[in-house]
Amino acid sequence: MEHTYGVIMAGGKGERFWPLSTKRVPKPFIRLLATNTMIQMTVERLLKIVPEDRIMVVLGAEHLAIAQEQLSLWPAVRYLVEPAGRDTAPCIGLAAVTLQREDPKALMVVVPSDHYIPDQFIFVETMRKGIRLARDDARLVTTGIKPTRPETGYGYIQAGKRLPSDVPDGCFEVRRFVEKPDARRAADYLAEGGYYWNSGIFIWQADTVLRGIARHMPRLDRGLQQIRAAMDAGDEVKKDEFFCALEKRSIDYGLMEKAENVVMLEAGFIWDDVGTWSSLQRVLPADERGNCIHGEAVCVDTKGCVIYGEDVPVGTIGLENLIVVASKRGVLVCPKDRDQDARKIAGHMENDD
Amino acid sequence: MEHTYGVIMAGGKGERFWPLSTKRVPKPFIRLLATNTMIQMTVERLLKIVPEDRIMVVLGAEHLAIAQEQLSLWPAVRYLVEPAGRDTAPCIGLAAVTLQREDPKALMVVVPSDHYIPDQFIFVETMRKGIRLARDDARLVTTGIKPTRPETGYGYIQAGKRLPSDVPDGCFEVRRFVEKPDARRAADYLAEGGYYWNSGIFIWQADTVLRGIARHMPRLDRGLQQIRAAMDAGDEVKKDEFFCALEKRSIDYGLMEKAENVVMLEAGFIWDDVGTWSSLQRVLPADERGNCIHGEAVCVDTKGCVIYGEDVPVGTIGLENLIVVASKRGVLVCPKDRDQDARKIAGHMENDD
Repeated sequence: MEHTYGVIMAGGKGERFWPLSTKRVPKPFIRLLATNTMIQMTVERLLKIVPEDRIMVVLGAEHLAIAQEQLSLWPAVRYLVEPAGRDTAPCIGLAAVTLQREDPKALMVVVPSDHYIPDQFIFVETMRKGIRLARDDARLVTTGIKPTRPETGYGYIQAGKRLPSDVPDGCFEVRRFVEKPDARRAADYLAEGGYYWNSGIFIWQADTVLRGIARHMPRLDRGLQQIRAAMDAGDEVKKDEFFCALEKRSIDYGLMEKAENVVMLEAGFIWDDVGTWSSLQRVLPADERGNCIHGEAVCVDTKGCVIYGEDVPVGTIGLENLIVVASKRGVLVCPKDRDQDARKIAGHMENDD
Repeated sequence: MEHTYGVIMAGGKGERFWPLSTKRVPKPFIRLLATNTMIQMTVERLLKIVPEDRIMVVLGAEHLAIAQEQLSLWPAVRYLVEPAGRDTAPCIGLAAVTLQREDPKALMVVVPSDHYIPDQFIFVETMRKGIRLARDDARLVTTGIKPTRPETGYGYIQAGKRLPSDVPDGCFEVRRFVEKPDARRAADYLAEGGYYWNSGIFIWQADTVLRGIARHMPRLDRGLQQIRAAMDAGDEVKKDEFFCALEKRSIDYGLMEKAENVVMLEAGFIWDDVGTWSSLQRVLPADERGNCIHGEAVCVDTKGCVIYGEDVPVGTIGLENLIVVASKRGVLVCPKDRDQDARKIAGHMENDD
């Protein structure tokens, strides 16, 4: 697919996976349930759609070395370093400007670097449909996941009219984007139907998204024009200064909620953001006592626990509904409903790694 | 002190300290709360009483290499290898025969290899008193610890008449030895007074203990005579055969409960057998929320826990009355009252070390 580029957003912090993830080694760079790291698996998925030299990783300078090391199998992969984290809108804007300068017809498949998508094949199919939509109709294509539970941890997309298209899984206008709902509303969405999880996977032409930014985010647009001028002048320092001056804003809030040419592709693939340790319950099979175990573990009188061992055997006796994470870099033990606080632990540890 | 020998019994299994201790590395060889291992600290204590070349470690062949490695600072330390574990009476008998053949006046200070005795100075004082008693009066001297709580995990010694002696802490006839009591009786012992914990530290002349064995354990005596004959003949194979044919028997049950020339020395030193993970509560200071922490740990909303980290930082959130042990060799999590089951875990782990 000519002019198609994979853009991997790898700027997050991800300390919620302490002790596996830390400031220096955030979630994209950890091996979660796999022999490969999350960013390695993300690259492998994209390589089914675009060649290696059309994959771009957007990330902070502090993670460039580890990304290059982990992706050393693919030396043609490119890196776009953000001088500071400014959320997704500036990140995507910078990538769009960079690609458009080189290839005015550039089309971007924007994906997070740390999500769980077990089925590459269906992912690739969905992306191909999205690419067609984004190219032919100059749409801002977002990807919605059909919810399977009343999840309160994700944003939702309420689908509108089904569009006439050859996309079998369905392609919809977007009625509205919804922030993370409370439990009751999440249950309503599930019962009512027509609501989808916002996966954070976007497909669009660089030109389309930059036009959208120009219309709905004029300040970001001005900043991106300054950045483009600095790039034309070869002035890296200025470019970074302008980037740092941008406001933090998410692409959902800044653009997607306002633009009219947004469409939502219903994704057929299984997807999970695996945002916290307890989320592993959704992707790990449970034993007959409801324990989800990864790695070597001996569990005596233990039920409803998530046991995650990385190269360290775990023994548990008489536990219930706890998370136990064991690695050579650290050990975490907490009730399943307190796993968000792993961040606090990470923040307090003297030795980050 | 001429003719005095330190005999360290290091034949135990000690899987209750999994993951730190394992079959291959039992409790004497682990670092518990210290930079030195328990057997290293035991040797250091004995070196205040006897020279290096009068220290003998009795142990199984499978632990000879690790003992030699850990005690390599003291190359003159001797090793007596038991071809099989036969409990303390054969162990002590073998050591007594070995020493008596070389030195008919040999006096033995017999100590376990894995107990916690923080104050070397008082330990040495008590041992010196015991050595005097054992030498001058040909007594079987045992060491009793004044109980500080109604402990059900130890055997007790009920003291009899106080003996006229210059020993300031007191030296008593022994009325009886008591097996581990239940909680009510342990409370009675504490209230009543005159009961002491049986520390497993003995002082006697080799000659005295062998006479006692001859009188009260005739079968062991016969076996030891066969062993002595095999030693005289230089026949190691026979010697091992005879040892293996000995019955398992503890020195308390086989000899101490029966002999008349037993005296109990009241020990002034702090002592703990630290037999399980939860026993660390007794030797580690507790923080204001009742947590006993060793190593690097960040504890959020955690109370009454024992957190033991060896070279691995530990994070806990929302825990109560749990034990968390973290090491690069394994991780254990269990309620404080289930720590005896650590053995089960050790037994089920595929990779012992």
